[in-house]
Amino acid sequence: MLPIDDSPIVRDGKSVILAMDHGLEHGPVDFEDVPEKLDPAQVFETATHDAVTAIAVQKGIAEGYYPSYENDVNLLVKLNGTSNLWMGEPDSAVNCSVEYAAEIGADAVGFTVYGGSNHEIEMVEEFREIQEEAREYGLPVVMWSYPRGQGLKNDTKPSTISYATRLALELGADIAKVKYPGSREAMAHACRCAGDMKVVMSGGSKTSDEEFLSTVESTIRSGGSGLAVGRNVWQREDPTPLLDGLESVIYEEQTAGAALGNESEADATDAAIEG
Amino acid sequence: MLPIDDSPIVRDGKSVILAMDHGLEHGPVDFEDVPEKLDPAQVFETATHDAVTAIAVQKGIAEGYYPSYENDVNLLVKLNGTSNLWMGEPDSAVNCSVEYAAEIGADAVGFTVYGGSNHEIEMVEEFREIQEEAREYGLPVVMWSYPRGQGLKNDTKPSTISYATRLALELGADIAKVKYPGSREAMAHACRCAGDMKVVMSGGSKTSDEEFLSTVESTIRSGGSGLAVGRNVWQREDPTPLLDGLESVIYEEQTAGAALGNESEADATDAAIEG
Amino acid sequence: MLPIDDSPIVRDGKSVILAMDHGLEHGPVDFEDVPEKLDPAQVFETATHDAVTAIAVQKGIAEGYYPSYENDVNLLVKLNGTSNLWMGEPDSAVNCSVEYAAEIGADAVGFTVYGGSNHEIEMVEEFREIQEEAREYGLPVVMWSYPRGQGLKNDTKPSTISYATRLALELGADIAKVKYPGSREAMAHACRCAGDMKVVMSGGSKTSDEEFLSTVESTIRSGGSGLAVGRNVWQREDPTPLLDGLESVIYEEQTAGAALGNESEADATDAAIEG
Amino acid sequence: MLPIDDSPIVRDGKSVILAMDHGLEHGPVDFEDVPEKLDPAQVFETATHDAVTAIAVQKGIAEGYYPSYENDVNLLVKLNGTSNLWMGEPDSAVNCSVEYAAEIGADAVGFTVYGGSNHEIEMVEEFREIQEEAREYGLPVVMWSYPRGQGLKNDTKPSTISYATRLALELGADIAKVKYPGSREAMAHACRCAGDMKVVMSGGSKTSDEEFLSTVESTIRSGGSGLAVGRNVWQREDPTPLLDGLESVIYEEQTAGAALGNESEADATDAAIEG
Amino acid sequence: MLPIDDSPIVRDGKSVILAMDHGLEHGPVDFEDVPEKLDPAQVFETATHDAVTAIAVQKGIAEGYYPSYENDVNLLVKLNGTSNLWMGEPDSAVNCSVEYAAEIGADAVGFTVYGGSNHEIEMVEEFREIQEEAREYGLPVVMWSYPRGQGLKNDTKPSTISYATRLALELGADIAKVKYPGSREAMAHACRCAGDMKVVMSGGSKTSDEEFLSTVESTIRSGGSGLAVGRNVWQREDPTPLLDGLESVIYEEQTAGAALGNESEADATDAAIEG
Repeated sequence: MLPIDDSPIVRDGKSVILAMDHGLEHGPVDFEDVPEKLDPAQVFETATHDAVTAIAVQKGIAEGYYPSYENDVNLLVKLNGTSNLWMGEPDSAVNCSVEYAAEIGADAVGFTVYGGSNHEIEMVEEFREIQEEAREYGLPVVMWSYPRGQGLKNDTKPSTISYATRLALELGADIAKVKYPGSREAMAHACRCAGDMKVVMSGGSKTSDEEFLSTVESTIRSGGSGLAVGRNVWQREDPTPLLDGLESVIYEEQTAGAALGNESEADATDAAIEG
Repeated sequence: MLPIDDSPIVRDGKSVILAMDHGLEHGPVDFEDVPEKLDPAQVFETATHDAVTAIAVQKGIAEGYYPSYENDVNLLVKLNGTSNLWMGEPDSAVNCSVEYAAEIGADAVGFTVYGGSNHEIEMVEEFREIQEEAREYGLPVVMWSYPRGQGLKNDTKPSTISYATRLALELGADIAKVKYPGSREAMAHACRCAGDMKVVMSGGSKTSDEEFLSTVESTIRSGGSGLAVGRNVWQREDPTPLLDGLESVIYEEQTAGAALGNESEADATDAAIEG
Repeated sequence: MLPIDDSPIVRDGKSVILAMDHGLEHGPVDFEDVPEKLDPAQVFETATHDAVTAIAVQKGIAEGYYPSYENDVNLLVKLNGTSNLWMGEPDSAVNCSVEYAAEIGADAVGFTVYGGSNHEIEMVEEFREIQEEAREYGLPVVMWSYPRGQGLKNDTKPSTISYATRLALELGADIAKVKYPGSREAMAHACRCAGDMKVVMSGGSKTSDEEFLSTVESTIRSGGSGLAVGRNVWQREDPTPLLDGLESVIYEEQTAGAALGNESEADATDAAIEG
Repeated sequence: MLPIDDSPIVRDGKSVILAMDHGLEHGPVDFEDVPEKLDPAQVFETATHDAVTAIAVQKGIAEGYYPSYENDVNLLVKLNGTSNLWMGEPDSAVNCSVEYAAEIGADAVGFTVYGGSNHEIEMVEEFREIQEEAREYGLPVVMWSYPRGQGLKNDTKPSTISYATRLALELGADIAKVKYPGSREAMAHACRCAGDMKVVMSGGSKTSDEEFLSTVESTIRSGGSGLAVGRNVWQREDPTPLLDGLESVIYEEQTAGAALGNESEADATDAAIEG
Repeated sequence: MLPIDDSPIVRDGKSVILAMDHGLEHGPVDFEDVPEKLDPAQVFETATHDAVTAIAVQKGIAEGYYPSYENDVNLLVKLNGTSNLWMGEPDSAVNCSVEYAAEIGADAVGFTVYGGSNHEIEMVEEFREIQEEAREYGLPVVMWSYPRGQGLKNDTKPSTISYATRLALELGADIAKVKYPGSREAMAHACRCAGDMKVVMSGGSKTSDEEFLSTVESTIRSGGSGLAVGRNVWQREDPTPLLDGLESVIYEEQTAGAALGNESEADATDAAIEG
């Protein structure tokens, strides 16, 4: 962890990373309901929204589409990933070097570590290399810290997510991307485990505006620094209203209810999430 | 993916790659009916046809025969491959470096990735290295994107081929070579998944002129950019008529029927394929 | 082993290393009773006590917190470690390079070797690389010498701990950190096996002041050179009294009883430990 | 494959490689009947015969004995090998680098590839490295192309040997050393599969002069370029008459019968072999 | 193998290597009866005897103790080794680089190869690297050639030891250290298999002066060049008489009996050994 408040991927101490690596990780099936989003240009367009501090994509998409958006979008190159055609113990191929990411204009790099996997040792050693090389290029490192593997059935339980943020801190990440552990209290503990390192919530599969913004609000109030979101944004035909809402909740620290214009429902939603 | 329309292996935005690595991948058995084609010079002769934008061979053949054809043929060096004497989980040996390929005159390089294989991680990491090194040499990279391995029985079903093209895009290929997924609709989806990256159809085992050209036409009409073909060309005693047909279908965007001089049958054939 | 009496991590030939890598090795659970210690700054504060010759942390914590303490604390960067989410044969990921440790100001480096593990070969080879690189940077190397793995049930029996110190000597460590083998006689043998190399006792899980200081006294009287301690210090709400006691026992070679102000109990305690 | 007719290991387009790596591959047992040949100097003496274009030995023997013969013998350093004390799936240790082989005066290098073995991938990748490095030093590469391993019971059947020569061609060998596939017709096919690359027959275990020379004659008439022979030469107390015979059959293209002075038997022998 | 008669570890063509790596290989248990020898300085003292041409120790011991003896002792750094806490298929960790051995003053390096182990391939490849690097530094290489592993039950039978010396010769060792194969005839064969390379006998576990010197005499008369001895020397309280005896037997080529002052018993002892 180094101070990164001056990084372009941070705005007022917060980050909203628009992720679109699903074509690699999940395959085209994630685009079934919004086939036009198979065109990466459309997602880059979305990333020009002021709420978004960076777009997270794989090397090939960065090479092909970032040049047209380099003035309007900050680029986070995800350095590893795996198809879900492969079904072994969780692991991820390092498919881009830090040097090449820097060359194509990255403002930050991302890397998945599956703590608890039989490949933890190897992934952490790969992380060491990319983290230290990223330091040379002055690029912040975001760890997708996703405990997973033999013996880790429920990977969102509070102790797992707290371990996930701590792992990221100890190993030298600048931001940890973790799943929401189910309650504001658990998220707050996970953020405390991270010390001064930033924690962003992982967006997960598509839910309603209310549910999603409430979870984000809960993350922010727990000490989180924003979110990395994919499907909840680009699987919407028009993501603008949700992005406007995220801007209010994250940077202006409004309640989800206020951001959606129905203040009165906010507490009820919170209670439901924390229950 | 980088813009490659100015590459010598592209003509009017299209590519026809004549592949002859079967001696390594399948063994001499593929030459049983045309033993004279065991002489690589004969296949290089065929590659001088205007329809062909590159010949794809392994290092040893490139070393020995390309010097006599360097003015008439564009060279794509395939950088990995495996004999079928070996019967393990799909994998492929990296048998030529990018540096050496460049030294012997390559205009492009090719690399197989078996997505879904237990060796996917390793192959993708090898691909990273060759892709980034190819960038330094300014050589386009063609990915033989062939999902295969544990749990992937039918490797030409539409969702598999769409995943194959997307994988190639995300990982940074310039052209993806994939199998025909059985229908024009499926091929069109596979091409959409590839964004702006070029997709070429894999020729497969020898069929009739009609069936072959119709499939090629279908690929072109689906947004494909040509084909990589081996046996359907050099297993013919005289490949010229078929190459003439390919030239019409691919560069002039004629129907297969028109290219074969029997326009009336074209729609019927299309229907059969798409059925 | 090289002479290291002039190293900042040694005071009068002795060392007290305050270790705080538990967030990685054990997870946040070790901080359950003292949640405020999840903030690494609090443990760095503790490390400013004169008794402490170095703080041992992982790279990420060193990056984030050492800059505020570089004038008051000596830094030992632990170069490998593993989460306990992972449950395979003992192994440890090399998560920091010697070069990077030096760059962020390390005064020494630490490395775990699990002798007897199925990964012994690999870990010893990693140790070779870090040890030789540490020599180039003039950094002392502390080996966490922890025999563990298939067939090693009781990893604190006297012969195991004696083997542990000898391994560290033969492989080129400057200090071996080993578990207390249960008796003063066994500890003395372990120290003899180490030749002129320094041996420090591993603190282990939290016990009473009396028990802990008596074990430390026993180590010092056996020829040991101090201790590496974590939970027994920072799991205490106010660690100062214990650190004062350690200072007396280790540098002034007082008895544990004298250090605690109840001299008369000292012999009884010793007897209990050695029994 | 590069043109190598000007290489010192080729004479009039042909090669006779005297191999003596049996001490490593088979152990001293191969020298049981000729214990004086345990002295490598004796085999180097034999290699001074005009019929021999190179001696093939391992690094240690080359280091120790070649300096006394560098004016009279051409040196081929075999770069990998394995003892038969080891009994796993066919593999071979790379025991000499190309750079070192060049430094000790090699005129060519040799490398075994077990196509079809579970180690094929790894061996082919090792071959890539040595082949490309050999190109930098201008050293021809001889591949011991020996399909072997899981599922490859009879490793001299015609289709296996034809695959073996083709593999060598595709992977960039300059000469393939293969076993005799049992008939002149099969050997001719194997040579056709090799394109312009040279194929030499592997000598195998000791047989009579008649049988051996007839097989060699058959190889030459099939388009082969000579042989690599060990036991059939140095297991003879006086190898000179056989070497004289090989000179006649290989360079002067005489029949085996003529070379042995009993012309009339030649056709009968041929028939027997081809039967 | 290179000529090494001018090396400091050779005296009149012979070598006596005092080995003390038992603390790593066997653990402190080997010092049970002579605990004072746990102090490496004591063994270095012993190595100052004129009979000893080199002391063989691991890196850590060399670092710590050789500086005090560099004028009186020649240093052989053993570059690999493994604890017997680990119980897998025979293997050995490379725990010191050639470069570092040279830096700390080594006159020679040593390396174990377990021919026949499932790790033979890997160990031979490691040997290649250290052997070639040792050539650059002008350091002789001693191979501990110890066939061992799956299927190798009796690792001192004559054919195994002969294979062991041959392996060392073919792979480029300058001296092979092998176990005594049980008879003078077998040792003589093992030496013949080594060509011009030197063979030294491995001392093994402690025996009587008579038995030990007789075996050494047998080795010398068989063409051996000395011995590498550990326990038989330093497990004796006063090793000087035995070292005097070794000096007589090895450099002056006296009989064991004469060396011990009881000439008449010599032949009988010989007969017993060879029986």
